Amino acid sequence: MANTTNRQIVIAARPNGKAQLSDFNIVEQAIPSPGDGEVLFRNLLISMDPYQRNLMGNASSELPPIDIGQPMSGPTVAVVEQSRNANFAVGDHVVSWSGWQEYGLSDGSDLQKIDPEAAPLSTALGVLGHTGLTAWLGVSKFLNPKPGGTFVVTAAAGSVGSVAAQLAKLRGHRVIGIAGGPEKVRYLKEDLGLDDAVDYKAPDFAEQLARALPNGLDTLFDNVGGYMFEALMPYFNHHAQIVICGTIAQYDFPDAPNGPNRLPELLKSFLYRFIEIRSFALPDHLGSHPEFLAEVGPLVSQGKIKYSEEFVDGFENIPDAFLRLFDGRNRGKLIARVGGTRARHQATP
Amino acid sequence: MANTTNRQIVIAARPNGKAQLSDFNIVEQAIPSPGDGEVLFRNLLISMDPYQRNLMGNASSELPPIDIGQPMSGPTVAVVEQSRNANFAVGDHVVSWSGWQEYGLSDGSDLQKIDPEAAPLSTALGVLGHTGLTAWLGVSKFLNPKPGGTFVVTAAAGSVGSVAAQLAKLRGHRVIGIAGGPEKVRYLKEDLGLDDAVDYKAPDFAEQLARALPNGLDTLFDNVGGYMFEALMPYFNHHAQIVICGTIAQYDFPDAPNGPNRLPELLKSFLYRFIEIRSFALPDHLGSHPEFLAEVGPLVSQGKIKYSEEFVDGFENIPDAFLRLFDGRNRGKLIARVGGTRARHQATP
Repeated sequence: MANTTNRQIVIAARPNGKAQLSDFNIVEQAIPSPGDGEVLFRNLLISMDPYQRNLMGNASSELPPIDIGQPMSGPTVAVVEQSRNANFAVGDHVVSWSGWQEYGLSDGSDLQKIDPEAAPLSTALGVLGHTGLTAWLGVSKFLNPKPGGTFVVTAAAGSVGSVAAQLAKLRGHRVIGIAGGPEKVRYLKEDLGLDDAVDYKAPDFAEQLARALPNGLDTLFDNVGGYMFEALMPYFNHHAQIVICGTIAQYDFPDAPNGPNRLPELLKSFLYRFIEIRSFALPDHLGSHPEFLAEVGPLVSQGKIKYSEEFVDGFENIPDAFLRLFDGRNRGKLIARVGGTRARHQATP
Repeated sequence: MANTTNRQIVIAARPNGKAQLSDFNIVEQAIPSPGDGEVLFRNLLISMDPYQRNLMGNASSELPPIDIGQPMSGPTVAVVEQSRNANFAVGDHVVSWSGWQEYGLSDGSDLQKIDPEAAPLSTALGVLGHTGLTAWLGVSKFLNPKPGGTFVVTAAAGSVGSVAAQLAKLRGHRVIGIAGGPEKVRYLKEDLGLDDAVDYKAPDFAEQLARALPNGLDTLFDNVGGYMFEALMPYFNHHAQIVICGTIAQYDFPDAPNGPNRLPELLKSFLYRFIEIRSFALPDHLGSHPEFLAEVGPLVSQGKIKYSEEFVDGFENIPDAFLRLFDGRNRGKLIARVGGTRARHQATP
């Protein structure tokens, strides 16, 4: 029997600190019908990313929060089920930004067709999708360090950090990854081949960091901010280059936390060490996607860039899986498989 | 009777917080004799600059402090009294880096000849010297804002800030100066022609700032750091460009002050507003001095860039005058006239 309802996971409440299950709700609506020029697609894979915490409100963010009652936004891999748009045929696979819902409607402008034969569909949400592109932009377009220096990546076992660290390694840097727990440290050193890895959850984190950075750091790809950035500040070398890609450690804290105030120390690092900090917004750089794919696509298929994915089955399990992103329990790109049991790959409208 | 002693103002003690008179000592030594290739010069004008606080130690600085018992370093205008260097003749006027002493000896490599007819000698320590060059480098080489935006200068009545503010005005920006006290505010608005000025000592500083920055700030030339930088953070526009030229508000505080911790807010500004912060070391850019003089020299002689100087007479009064730099009592470039009563312009060796 054809499915007639579209389930959505909506923001039920603004989190008070850490997000909780009760901040989400699952609602049902009728599957919409495409108007002239529109496409109806069914999501197969739904991405969960740390930045989505910021879209829930009460966060250290300047992104506008999603309205209460509206579904979480974000990228998905979908299959076209009905099309009134000449550019898309039923059965086409696309990346959409329809977020946490089972079906989406689009005029096509925010859809990107993908070839399901070229690479596993899930890579379009990770190593060859928005997280890989983010890593590549940071390393290739916003950092320009001399090879041979020390390149630090925080949240290095994560979906962005792991690609950034491997790209930095391929460019000839001494790459140090920071991640939580011995298994991730092993993964970074043995599987990804980084020069060293530091466990931020270990009681001797400070000592591990000092051992890993005997000559300071020349480049930092930071996904964490907060206490992690503060721990790294003393290691900034003269002319160190830094990309701030995320501040996951401070997403839950909308106000200035208790001191000591580390801002004067950072200003001093600008004044005396000439450090440079940059950031960028992914939507401003989507035009670089072909250049990114041309470089990173072959590296992935040759196994020179490894990636890790963690799948969660079932639409209703998305909120619980999402919350894992914030306690360091997951590794690699976190993706929900939602189309499995209801697959209608050749559905007719 | 020819003078035979060279007085020096030396660092007597590391300051504990604010520098005090007791942190200095005046000592005498015999005037040295130039060796082969060397030049003996007598200082006429001695510069006092806020960064010199950092050379005293126990400061929020990464400059190596001067050894206890050694004279404060810094720029002077001097006249050559004895020369065993073919490039310098007795009577030549030079800028030296001999610091707070009456005489200096050099192999000539750190001396720069100046023409006493071209401009008042004192300008070689200020508007046409290291402070003017610093302002010009920041505005011309390290900031590249679109004309028409809001350009904020802190310590805007100071020797660097006043030149930076006027250069920004000449480049078509809406320039807001921040300084302490109604007289400096009047000076910035009426004498320098800035678009607005804000008194950081006024009880309604926050309200004045809000009124002066209805559209935020696009460019910041900051000489102050600390609380001043923190007050300006909420006004940073997307892609705001910032030069950190000094952090005078935090020189006396070597440790991280009590909170709240404003660092996470700044990291957030990088992530969501794409602000850019730069700094530079003057010694790395002395090669730009001719380009600077070619632009700013005519602007000064045409009165398009105004400058303010405050003179202190007498070598022994240098420490007291220097301390004024830190409570906002002085305005413009602070210079000690030390050669007056002992002038021997045509002295023979």
